[in-house]
Formats: sequence, structure tokens, C-alpha cells
Amino acid sequence: MEVTAHHRLFGGDLKFVRHEAASTGTSMALSVFVPDGEGPHPVLVWLSGLTCTANNFTEKAGAYKRAAELGLMIVAPDTSPRGDGVANDEGYDLGQGAGFYVDATEAPWAAHFQMESYVTKDVLSLIAEHFPADMTRVGISGHSMGGHGALTLAMNHPHHFKSMSAFAPIASPLNCPWGQKALTAYLGEDRTAWQRHDAAALIAQGRASGFDDILIDQGLGDQFLETQLKPHLLEQAASGAGQKITVRRHAGYDHSYYFITSFIDDHLAFHAERLKG
Amino acid sequence: MEVTAHHRLFGGDLKFVRHEAASTGTSMALSVFVPDGEGPHPVLVWLSGLTCTANNFTEKAGAYKRAAELGLMIVAPDTSPRGDGVANDEGYDLGQGAGFYVDATEAPWAAHFQMESYVTKDVLSLIAEHFPADMTRVGISGHSMGGHGALTLAMNHPHHFKSMSAFAPIASPLNCPWGQKALTAYLGEDRTAWQRHDAAALIAQGRASGFDDILIDQGLGDQFLETQLKPHLLEQAASGAGQKITVRRHAGYDHSYYFITSFIDDHLAFHAERLKG
Repeated sequence: MEVTAHHRLFGGDLKFVRHEAASTGTSMALSVFVPDGEGPHPVLVWLSGLTCTANNFTEKAGAYKRAAELGLMIVAPDTSPRGDGVANDEGYDLGQGAGFYVDATEAPWAAHFQMESYVTKDVLSLIAEHFPADMTRVGISGHSMGGHGALTLAMNHPHHFKSMSAFAPIASPLNCPWGQKALTAYLGEDRTAWQRHDAAALIAQGRASGFDDILIDQGLGDQFLETQLKPHLLEQAASGAGQKITVRRHAGYDHSYYFITSFIDDHLAFHAERLKG
Repeated sequence: MEVTAHHRLFGGDLKFVRHEAASTGTSMALSVFVPDGEGPHPVLVWLSGLTCTANNFTEKAGAYKRAAELGLMIVAPDTSPRGDGVANDEGYDLGQGAGFYVDATEAPWAAHFQMESYVTKDVLSLIAEHFPADMTRVGISGHSMGGHGALTLAMNHPHHFKSMSAFAPIASPLNCPWGQKALTAYLGEDRTAWQRHDAAALIAQGRASGFDDILIDQGLGDQFLETQLKPHLLEQAASGAGQKITVRRHAGYDHSYYFITSFIDDHLAFHAERLKG
């Protein structure tokens, strides 16, 4: 692991690091915030949305003040493998910057686009080995494509994640253009393989039953709300499964990091409460 | 005035706007945050540092939560005129992105580099005309080159500004390479013209006497501390003039926005206290 940048902030340490990831077969960049104080610390994994790198959340979310107060580590990985030898697409919603947190089975993506394994194996191993993290107390959150990633990875890997939340998540890739395009490319035409990457479907199957609540924030001024995000599908699935979910809708807020920063402190508190030692 | 983007955040409104500025003779971009609630609101003008646009502070400083709580407007202008017809230099520390908040008298800069007038006339007029601002309650702060700008504009225009503070300011352009290069280019070789653009010199002349305190934050891990910033020159000048100044030095903090975001709330409170109705 190489530390490419190190900043002191809010009485904690932020490091940008780079490592060779076995799952993707590429060099991957992420940021890690470690609060001052006695470790090991609980950890929040943040998954970013389409077009983002590790930098967007790190620079724009304004999360570290409250994280420092709560004694919470925050880990922000990249959204896909990258590099000259990595497959790509001209669209912003497929390929580099758009890994969708799945392990691709189809060519040309399968060679490097193994983002489910990357987050749940490489990233968690890196944190466990090199940082003062309590790996029994890890939560996960994210935005848009990363909200989809947070919810689906949490439900598919509940032994890793004790809490989950999301901002403006893609609720059901089975039922929106972004999801249909990406999952067709990465997983093929057979939609049975998509089921375990659909948060609404997983909730309907009772896969969230180990989580006492799911916190979702959604802006009502979000241009993608009706066509791509569809949080009501999470509510319908939760209602059918007897799963508690808290979906907060905010008039006027859009899909940007200005929306995320406005409510990130509530998500940090939500996770910290569930990750108490 | 054209609103180029509008985001809701922290129960307030952030607008990126563009206007034709008489002082610079160019189209200029800035951001304006307006908190909810009864106006007119007190205003903090933020001046950014070398290479920055209006976006850096707006995206990275994490200032708007506390600003919303305090009922403070924040206005973040660009650091220079820009465009194809505007003079430039290959260095990052001269020309576009590096206006130094002076009115240039020398060719080729004088045509557009009128940043002292731009901030104190065009920006303040724009805010007064289009936003619910109380122009009798305006403070100014900034970072690095913008910290220099905040201190010198406040002391040269005390009828406009009731409070001043800075992060890692260039304390004395007369006594550092950045300042010497820029002021030679913009104002010519005669250093008598530089005096009114040197915060330490102005404080020594008693020009800060209308300000009950000056808040300065400085990181001790800042790579420019010894060569360019030299906050001890502000303290020496203040000591000689009987001027109160509060310089806080922070071990490990660098010159980045991670440093600014860590202490911005203290500056917002400092200004709000002095801008109370």
C-alpha cells in the first residue's frame, strides 16, 4: 500500500492510498479517514456514484467533522477499475467510473470489473491490515449507483456489514435504464443473475431482516428520481416483507453533493449508533 | 446577472451566478449562499487563493451548515478575470487565477486585472441589488492570496467591511517571492505603490484600528509557511501598533482546503459575532 497524500483535518488523519487489488487486477485508489483517539474504530464504507472517483466524497461531502466527533473511520473507494488496459465505454454510465459494484461475468468486462469482490475482499482486507479498524463494526452507505452498491453489498454480505443507508439510491436496477444497461453488459441478458443485485428484490426476499432500519434520503428536485431511482420500490418491498425502512424526501434538493452534505451527519449518527462497541 | 446553477443545501440556497463586470470588463463567475429566514442577512465575502475559481471554497470548505445556522450569506468571487482576451502568464502565480486583489496599473495587466475594484464595487453592488443582503454588515475572509486580499481590502475599505480574518494569508507581499513577482507585474517596480497592498505594512500604520480583533489560522505543516506566508510579520506589526490579533498555529495542518474546513466554523462565528444586527 502506498500513501499518495496525507492531510490533517478535524483532529484526524485523511490518507489517499493506492494498492494493487487482486480482485480487479489493477492499481486502485481510495481515501481513508482515521479519527484521533483510541482505536480500533468502527468503520463506514462509502460507495460513490456514476463518474465519481475516491475524491468526490472526500472533498465535497463535509463528513469528517462529525466522523471525528463520533470516532468513526470512513473509507471511500473508487467506483471501478481504471487504466489503459481496462475495458471502457463512451457512455458515462458504463465502464470506467461505472462499475455498479458487481462481479462481471461477460466479456470484455469480466477481466477487471470485479467490484463486489473488490469492496468486500480487497478493501476490507486493506483496512484490517493497515488501519486501526474494528472489522466487527462496519457499516456501508453510498450515493446513487453507490447507494445501490451499499444496499446490495450489505444484504449479500451481512457478515461484513452491520448497518446500511443510502442517498438517492438506484432502488431497482431491474427496473431502470441505468441498471438494465449496466447489468446486461456486466452480467448478460439472463435476468435471474441480476436478482441479487437489486435492492428492492433483496428486501422483498427478506434479506434485510438482520438490519433494524434502513435510512434513505432522497431529494425531490432530483432529476433522476422518477426515471432511475424510484425509492418507492424500496418502500413497497419493505412493506411486503415487514422490514423497517425510513425514506426521507426533501423538497428542492437535487442529486448533487450539496444534497449529500446537507444530510450526511444524520447518516453518520445512524451508523455510529448501530456500530457502538 | 445570470444564474448558472442553483442548489438547495442546509435549508438555504446556493447560486452560481455570472455577470458582466464593469471593473474588469469581463464576464465574472461567483457563488452566493443565502440562508433561509428573514433577511436582510449579514454577508461574508470569501477570497480564494492562487489557481482557485469560485468553485473551490464552494465545494470544499464545508462552510454552509454553520452559515445557515448563523444566518450568514457567503459570497465567493473568482480570483481574477478570465477569457481568451485576457492577459495571462505561464506561471500559476501570475495572471489568470492570480489577480492578487489589486488594480493593475501596468501593461498588459491593467486592461482587465482590476480585482480590488471588482470585489469592492462590482461584487458588493451585485449582492446589494440582487440578494437580501445587509450591506452595512459585511465581513471578509480568505485563504493564502485571498487572505492577503481579505486583510488589505478590509483595511483599505473599512467603510465596506466590519470584520476581517484569514487562513494562511500572505502576510507581506513586499517580503515574499509570490508578492514581489505579482506586484512588480501588476503595479511596477516602484515599491511605494505596493505599500497599501501589504497587510503587515497597513497594520503597522494603524490601519486596522477600527477592527477589535483579527483572526488568523495557520497550519504548521504548510509548505509555504516560511517562504511565502510569514504570519509573524502580522504579529510584529500588530504589536508595534497596539493592534489586537489572534494568530492560531495548528500542528500538522497543511495549506489545503482540508485545513480550511477544519477551522472555518470558528471564522464564521467570529464574523457573525461582529456583524450582529
